Amino acid sequence: MARQLPAMSSAAPDPAPNLARLRGFIVRMADLVAHHRQERDILAGGSDLLADLVRHDDWLPERYARPHPDRYQQYLLHCDSRERFCVVSFVWGPGQATPVHDHRVWGLVGVLRGAEEAQGFARGPDGLIPVGPPQILGPGEVDAVSPRIGDIHRVANAVPDGTSISIHVYGANIGAVARSVLDDSGAAHPFISGYADCPLPNLWQPV
Amino acid sequence: MARQLPAMSSAAPDPAPNLARLRGFIVRMADLVAHHRQERDILAGGSDLLADLVRHDDWLPERYARPHPDRYQQYLLHCDSRERFCVVSFVWGPGQATPVHDHRVWGLVGVLRGAEEAQGFARGPDGLIPVGPPQILGPGEVDAVSPRIGDIHRVANAVPDGTSISIHVYGANIGAVARSVLDDSGAAHPFISGYADCPLPNLWQPV
Ligand SMILES: [Fe+3]
Ligand SMILES: [Fe+3]
Ligand SMILES: [Mg+2]
Repeated sequence: MARQLPAMSSAAPDPAPNLARLRGFIVRMADLVAHHRQERDILAGGSDLLADLVRHDDWLPERYARPHPDRYQQYLLHCDSRERFCVVSFVWGPGQATPVHDHRVWGLVGVLRGAEEAQGFARGPDGLIPVGPPQILGPGEVDAVSPRIGDIHRVANAVPDGTSISIHVYGANIGAVARSVLDDSGAAHPFISGYADCPLPNLWQPV
Repeated sequence: MARQLPAMSSAAPDPAPNLARLRGFIVRMADLVAHHRQERDILAGGSDLLADLVRHDDWLPERYARPHPDRYQQYLLHCDSRERFCVVSFVWGPGQATPVHDHRVWGLVGVLRGAEEAQGFARGPDGLIPVGPPQILGPGEVDAVSPRIGDIHRVANAVPDGTSISIHVYGANIGAVARSVLDDSGAAHPFISGYADCPLPNLWQPV
């Protein structure tokens, strides 16, 4: 456990973020999608890679960890040249949640900091039906979505008074994918999420 | 020709940069390196793609067009997930030039703005020997380097009193490649260029 510091002590400056960890994850994800066509294999291998990434909280630059007072933030960290996958930092302030939405492609969610509540849904004859109980994901835990395994969910910050951060990987340039937000009746409304208006980290400097 | 404006008129604000043009170039370069293994084919196809890119000067965000008073700048615009290629904006102030250097991988240079002078060299028994006369490249023109076709050169701003900008594409994450600067005797000195300390443009927003 970290030793508790007196409230007024000046904290040591943050060490430089370990961008090599994120870069290594991206290179391995790219190898994975280059060598596997089956979504099942990508989700299995990608879950292991993402769990390895979010098990450590020493690499995300502060710029990509900032909550917005009004809405959750989606900071693009990397997009593959052929838009075969992308990596996004989702930052949730207190009380923030997504609408119920779908993805249309495979996706992986790994919690880096705080905790998130994910609730899956299916479409029933009379509207949306929850699929199982809400899941609480803590640091290092990974969840998956896709049209094959269940593509509709709602994600919320599970920390009532703090920030939570999750790292998401999708099988496309997710911010530009035409998908849906679903209302209680199950009706779909067009949804293109975009990204926070923010440049991308330079992961590629020599180390 | 642009109509000359009175010196004190307020210019219209720049339109938003056409990032879709750069994104399209990157996707097509990625397809090229995915489908061709021969350097010859990559240089031929890549030269055409780069010429198409630098023929238009409507897409480079101002952040990546800024000269530095003391040295030429190398702004990374994109690095492929597997480091198979990268795209860099080189910005040259008046009088700025590279040292004589090599690359170790294929490279393409396309002039976007201004003009550049490129001088190739070979190693001779008594030091560096110029290969042919200096070449002046103007806007839209493309040059190539590689260990196969000639890898040693020096590049200088050919505009004495202004900024020149060229867009470079390399078959690696060039900023991290261990290569050489060569002195007049032909002796090689270790050279890892890195990049300007600057985040990357977000090319991937929905349009
Ligand atoms: Fe989601
Ligand atoms: Fe060069
Ligand atoms: Mg890429």
